[in-house]
Amino acid sequence: LRDSCKCQACVHPPTQEKQLDSAKIDPKIQPLSWDVENNFHRLEVFWPQSARRPPHASTYTAEWLHQFTTRPHDEITDEVYINKKSSVILWNRDEIEENPPELEFDDFMGTRAGLKKMLKNVCKYGISILRGVPLNEHQIVNVARRMGYIRETGYGVTFDVKYNADPKTHLAYTGLQFGHHTDLAYRERAPGVQLLHCLKAADPASAQEHAGGKSFFVDGFYAAQWLRYNYPQHFETLSKTPVIFSFLDSDRDRWFRESWPVISVDHMGKLKDIHYSLFSMRPPLLPQDKVANYYQALRLFSQRIEQSTLQYSFYLTPGDLVVVNNRRILHGRTGFEPSKVERCVCW
Amino acid sequence: LRDSCKCQACVHPPTQEKQLDSAKIDPKIQPLSWDVENNFHRLEVFWPQSARRPPHASTYTAEWLHQFTTRPHDEITDEVYINKKSSVILWNRDEIEENPPELEFDDFMGTRAGLKKMLKNVCKYGISILRGVPLNEHQIVNVARRMGYIRETGYGVTFDVKYNADPKTHLAYTGLQFGHHTDLAYRERAPGVQLLHCLKAADPASAQEHAGGKSFFVDGFYAAQWLRYNYPQHFETLSKTPVIFSFLDSDRDRWFRESWPVISVDHMGKLKDIHYSLFSMRPPLLPQDKVANYYQALRLFSQRIEQSTLQYSFYLTPGDLVVVNNRRILHGRTGFEPSKVERCVCW
Repeated sequence: LRDSCKCQACVHPPTQEKQLDSAKIDPKIQPLSWDVENNFHRLEVFWPQSARRPPHASTYTAEWLHQFTTRPHDEITDEVYINKKSSVILWNRDEIEENPPELEFDDFMGTRAGLKKMLKNVCKYGISILRGVPLNEHQIVNVARRMGYIRETGYGVTFDVKYNADPKTHLAYTGLQFGHHTDLAYRERAPGVQLLHCLKAADPASAQEHAGGKSFFVDGFYAAQWLRYNYPQHFETLSKTPVIFSFLDSDRDRWFRESWPVISVDHMGKLKDIHYSLFSMRPPLLPQDKVANYYQALRLFSQRIEQSTLQYSFYLTPGDLVVVNNRRILHGRTGFEPSKVERCVCW
Repeated sequence: LRDSCKCQACVHPPTQEKQLDSAKIDPKIQPLSWDVENNFHRLEVFWPQSARRPPHASTYTAEWLHQFTTRPHDEITDEVYINKKSSVILWNRDEIEENPPELEFDDFMGTRAGLKKMLKNVCKYGISILRGVPLNEHQIVNVARRMGYIRETGYGVTFDVKYNADPKTHLAYTGLQFGHHTDLAYRERAPGVQLLHCLKAADPASAQEHAGGKSFFVDGFYAAQWLRYNYPQHFETLSKTPVIFSFLDSDRDRWFRESWPVISVDHMGKLKDIHYSLFSMRPPLLPQDKVANYYQALRLFSQRIEQSTLQYSFYLTPGDLVVVNNRRILHGRTGFEPSKVERCVCW
């Protein structure tokens, strides 16, 4: 309570930076006295201070105090702790197809409403599709810069997914099928927002159901929430078991490694991140009696995300640019004839 | 064990990407048969496969198997899991002053050995000081680009710490004393490597012990390791209690928030990150009976990092550029006359 004082001496008003040294508070501190004021709407507490300084007065409203009485803390409204405005909408195939999160490139680049729509789509649904993006490799950078700043990686500012007949460095260059995954989970922090610009595709006329190269996107939060309600123990396993994601950058002969649970929840228990990539997930270092349980949980989650009722799936045509929350949406593609397709990725 | 198979079908040899679908392994899988070969140096296991495919053969060396017999896993050498080469040297004031991690700008920019020395310093000690950097605002970008890539933030590519008489946005612009802290812990990931270039300082002749503006750096890992050995329960508290770091970007009226324990350890129990900043650390949301314990632990850690025997402390002179691991080294400065000093920061 002493550490929560918001008087002007303890918290710098314009920046909300704390000026009180929390580490110097006596862990056994007790109020000298207190007062209930304003018809029980305010509590005033007088705290002892060091040396010969007078007592420090802190004021707390009843409303502020009340929010901490529930557990888990799902009713906290203090914006020091939580973003009240965030709203996330979980979706399955039918829901996203009914209301596709699309917009036109010109609206996005030219109008404030377009930019806002794009950002809202990414926050709410974790995915947004831009149509009619000019077909050159720089456009992806323009789109990214309008939303924020680009995170450069070992691949440079952008990453071109072009066919490479000698796939020594990365399976992404091949035309192989790619199952559901999130990108770069082996980095110290997986990229948050990912952009995928389709520059070249097989002739749309021939892009029938079996032509291959079809993209699909799945809401990992939807699947995780399903697991939480139906198999809470398996949810617990996937949210508590650290899994090492590792990748060998063979050009530089350097390993990247990072450890995440498949499902990350924040300190309030809210879904935060999904890290899932069969290519880079290594067997977890678990005691023998927990191994089967982990694989059982992983299997259930994996079967759920692969169900067609969850897949938002379509053929990208040149000029389409998909923006996804890479820590929520799993993406993939069916196999294709690689020389016919060219994509450009940026984080 | 099945998931750890490293045959060419399960792991793509050049990239080490896994091709086996871990989620499809039957959690109750049992070997069909096994064989000990080559004078007990190799175990060959035959696993059942789905449909009518023949059994899958996996081979494991005795050495590889043996590394998993100890717990905690501090002897694992498999590079899929761990970096064998990393060596971190914890230091206090005497140790770092005896062997200061310094080098010349020209060596660093012009020679491979110089670059290597800089990177080694940052990896081993978490700090490296470059002398003789030309006094203009672009040099910091040159230094950063030679080491890696720059992480752009809301402040742009670089952040100028110049005096601002109206400190509405950030206390860093003032001449106030700044206690020990790491930077930007309220971001989704605190920057890893931080550069601080001193462009202007008070007249060195007058920069006596009490002139102010003295910089200090402390090895947070040293203090954390001290806590672990002497007060394991307090170490546990600081490494397990999520703390919200939050900051109000008042220009944009936007809160940044993220939650970290003060001391982060990785899945092997090794020290990983320190997040510590009294300005942005908020009171933890703990049950009543754990509050005093948390503040006791925080207090002990804080007292330890503030001890002068831990401080690497000196006056920056124009042309000095300090590179620190911002998730390990705490930094700060004593109060100063702000109009006389100009620094430039970049992450």
